[in-house]
Formats: sequence, structure tokens, C-alpha cells
Amino acid sequence: MAEKKNALTMVVSEKHLEKTMAAMIMATTAAASGMETHMFFTFWGLNALKKGFSPKLRGMMSAGTGMMNAKMKKLGIATWSDLLSMAQESGVNLYACNTTLQLFGFKKDDLLDGVRIVGAAQMLKMASESSVQFFIG
Amino acid sequence: MAEKKNALTMVVSEKHLEKTMAAMIMATTAAASGMETHMFFTFWGLNALKKGFSPKLRGMMSAGTGMMNAKMKKLGIATWSDLLSMAQESGVNLYACNTTLQLFGFKKDDLLDGVRIVGAAQMLKMASESSVQFFIG
Amino acid sequence: MAEKKNALTMVVSEKHLEKTMAAMIMATTAAASGMETHMFFTFWGLNALKKGFSPKLRGMMSAGTGMMNAKMKKLGIATWSDLLSMAQESGVNLYACNTTLQLFGFKKDDLLDGVRIVGAAQMLKMASESSVQFFIG
Repeated sequence: MAEKKNALTMVVSEKHLEKTMAAMIMATTAAASGMETHMFFTFWGLNALKKGFSPKLRGMMSAGTGMMNAKMKKLGIATWSDLLSMAQESGVNLYACNTTLQLFGFKKDDLLDGVRIVGAAQMLKMASESSVQFFIG
Repeated sequence: MAEKKNALTMVVSEKHLEKTMAAMIMATTAAASGMETHMFFTFWGLNALKKGFSPKLRGMMSAGTGMMNAKMKKLGIATWSDLLSMAQESGVNLYACNTTLQLFGFKKDDLLDGVRIVGAAQMLKMASESSVQFFIG
Repeated sequence: MAEKKNALTMVVSEKHLEKTMAAMIMATTAAASGMETHMFFTFWGLNALKKGFSPKLRGMMSAGTGMMNAKMKKLGIATWSDLLSMAQESGVNLYACNTTLQLFGFKKDDLLDGVRIVGAAQMLKMASESSVQFFIG
């Protein structure tokens, strides 16, 4: 089988703040410490790669999300769009799930520049070669 | 420690369509590419192994699930029961969590034929030997 | 890259019974079978390390949680606080996410004795060296 390398592969299947931010903070931390990093966005998670997306807390009024965002700002945690830029600049690989793209009728142009469209088989190959793999559900 | 092999172990803890379908699509993709594949169904996830089960989207009216199923059909994505058959035919191993079975009072006869009942220790051993492991939460 | 050892690293991001209990049962099972075990509690999951915490089922009335607890007791499954004690006695390492602690304004004193505060980089290092890694979402 393929040898493991110092890499992180995450499958992100949710769009809520508690999951997308957790994944993105892990991704930027991994990249900063020299890990090759792959994020594969599938099902609801694919929304997080749409231009202009801003994550919300699950099942909360927008006031709850606003308060959380204010607290994160105070702690110096970057916003979703800033984290995405940081991630891309530091070499984090962003992938959109091929099947989900068709399922939701999204166009490649709806997604951030630089996102690659791949299938589950390619994601599994990356995960097989990565020392850490997480499904963010 | 045990050597890693080209294998995928998933713990499926939810019964909703977005999670069970994602897991099953990964499983059939893995098996098709020659990976040994293990799916361990626990807690709410165990419902997905009951005869006649059909997954629904979380927190949606049944109309939402019907629309999603129609879109999936159009894209050629098999139904849950067809995916299960495909998985079993291609050698995907299905396991029911021993403790959950007792907790929910399910009988072995409630579950699909071919499902094996195992405990967490056996699942951890499989995961230890697998190149990819995911907890589908 | 770091060599893998016979170890389990889990990131616990939810506080509900279905996720915290699943994680803790896996942790105590792993420790009992000789695996080095690390649990990193982040976001909502950090609540589960507060003194006096008792997990509830997601989206259920408290009657539902009470019934589940009664069934679990009947099956000999320990309560959350007993499982935590068992885990600590058997060497399971409990970590609180540094960033979440600040985000929620928790004090170290709010958390169980013996919990260590670490960041995402340290968690990723543990996960890299572990034969099994799960994100409990």
C-alpha cells in the first residue's frame, strides 16, 4: 500500500460555523507546521466553498452567530473568508466533491478560484497517504 | 503495532441521508478500487442496517427528502437499498455494534442478512490496521 | 514523518450524549486493550469536561435522555462521570482546546482535575503518531 506522509486529509460534510471553522483552523495550523493539507468538501459542506459564504452556528438565531463572531474577532481568530485566503496562500488544497456539485446544480464559477473538482476515489487515495484523516460531520 | 493495509474502516453513528449516503458512497468507491472495507454501525446509525430502512434528510420535511432522492436518481446514484446490495456484493463488511443492539432492543433478525455483530474492541483493531479511518458523525 | 504507534486520538466537538458517550466508550475500550489514548475536546465538546456535566440526547426532551440513561444503566454502561473516572484511572489523556477555552470564557478551574490545555498543533502531532484518529462531530 501507499506509504504515509506528513499530511492531513479532511472530508468536510457540514456548512455550520462549528464544523467549518474547526476544520479550517486545523487546516491552517497543519499547513503552518509543514503538513501537506487536503480539504474535500462534500454534501452541505460544499456550500462553504461558494463565493461570499459566511458560516452560521447550527440551529441558532443570527444574533448567536453574531456574538460568536464578535468573540472570535476579539481573540484574533480570522473570519471565514480570511481563513480561506490564508489557507490558499499557505498551500492548503481545496477540493469540491464532483457528485455534490452536480446534485446541487452548482457551477464551477460559483466556487472560489483555485478549487479543484474531484471524486471520492481521489479523496480516498489522498487520505490513504496521509498521516491524519478526519471526516468532519 | 499492527501493520497498515489498504483498507477503509468507518464508524457510522447517524442515520440521516446526508451521512449514511456519504458513508455508503465512500464504501462502494473504496471497494471498487480494491480497498478492504469495513463499516461499523453504532448508535442512531444502527437503524440504517434494519430491513426496509430508507434514509431521510435531517430536520427536513419528507418533501425535501423526496426532492433529494429524485435528484440523486437523475444523476444515477443508487438508492440506499441498492447501494447496500452493491456494497455486500463487492465485499464491503457490515457490522452492528453489539452494545447498541442491546440498547435499542433490536434483534439480529431485524437486521439485513450478512451483518455481523461485533464490539468496539474489534472495530478498533480493524481501524488500527486500515490506511483510512473515518467516524461519520 | 513520525512513526505510528498503537494509539487512538479523538477530537470531540459535540457535547450530546450520542457523541460524548460513543467517544468515551471507545476511549475506555482502547485503553483497556493497551492503546495509548488521547481525547481533545473542542468547541461544544469542551462542555463535556466541565465539573458536574451530564450529557443529553440531541434535540430530545429530558424524558428521552432519562429513558436512555435508564436503559444504559440496565445494560451495565457506566454514567458519564463514572466513565470519565474510569478513563482517567486507565490512563486516558484528556485535553481541552486552548482556543475554545478562551472563546467560551471557561476557567481552568471549571474543568475536571487532570485535564491539560493544549492547542491544535499539539493535537495534530498526537494524531499523526496514532494508528487510529477520529473526529467526533
